[in-house]
Amino acid sequence: MTDLDEDIRTRLKRDDAGLVAAIIQQWDTGEVLMLGWMDDEALARTLTTGRVTFFSRSRQEYWRKGDTSGHIQYVHSVEIDCDGDALLVRVNQIGAACHTGAPTCFAAGGSLGAVSASDSDLGRVER
Amino acid sequence: MTDLDEDIRTRLKRDDAGLVAAIIQQWDTGEVLMLGWMDDEALARTLTTGRVTFFSRSRQEYWRKGDTSGHIQYVHSVEIDCDGDALLVRVNQIGAACHTGAPTCFAAGGSLGAVSASDSDLGRVER
Repeated sequence: MTDLDEDIRTRLKRDDAGLVAAIIQQWDTGEVLMLGWMDDEALARTLTTGRVTFFSRSRQEYWRKGDTSGHIQYVHSVEIDCDGDALLVRVNQIGAACHTGAPTCFAAGGSLGAVSASDSDLGRVER
Repeated sequence: MTDLDEDIRTRLKRDDAGLVAAIIQQWDTGEVLMLGWMDDEALARTLTTGRVTFFSRSRQEYWRKGDTSGHIQYVHSVEIDCDGDALLVRVNQIGAACHTGAPTCFAAGGSLGAVSASDSDLGRVER
C-alpha cells in the first residue's frame, strides 16, 4: 500500500506488471532524455520528494535516478495523459541522462533512418 | 512477417504484447504530444511512409494517425533508445494531437501537483 493519492490511483492505467511509462524531458530545453517505468510507489516518491524514482523492470527494484551515478533528475512537474497510461515528467537533469554516458538515451541509440515527410508536410515551407 | 529491417528487428526489446513505446514530439518546438505503441509492422510503416502508424492496444489494430480525425502526424525522424524498448518519433502534428481535442494528451490529462525541486536544483538561480 503506497500513499499515492486516491484520485491519482484511480486515474492510472497500469500494464500487466503494474507499471506506467514515464517520459523524462528536460524542463527548459524540451529535450526528451529517456523513458522509464513507474509503479504507484515510484510515482508517489517522484511527486513528493523532488527527485525522480523509477521501478526497474530488469532489476525489479526501485531506482532513484542519480543515487549511484550522481546523474540526478530534479522534478519540475509531472503530468498524466488523457487515458492514464503515460506520464510526462519535466526535470532538471544533472550530467548525462543515459547510463552509457550519452546526454540522452536516444542520442545513445541513434537514428533509425526514417524516410522523412516532405518539407511542406513538415511545415518548413509555405504551402 | 513484416519488412522491418533485420538490424532494427534485432535491436527492439518488445513487451509481452510485442510492442515498444513511441514518444511523439513536435520536431521544431520540442513539445511532447503523446505516447503510443508500435509493433514491428507499425514501426516499418512509420519508417517508410512519412506518416506515423501505431498499434492500438485497446482496439488491437493498426491506426494511422489522422486517417479519421485529419490530425495527421508527418514523420521528421525516428530514434531508438539505448536498450531498444522506446522510440522517439519527431513529427509535424496537424491539428490537435489528442483525441479529446486538446493540443497534447498531457495538456488533456493535466498536472499531478508534484512538489517541485528547489529553484537552485532546477538550475533557475546561480548556485
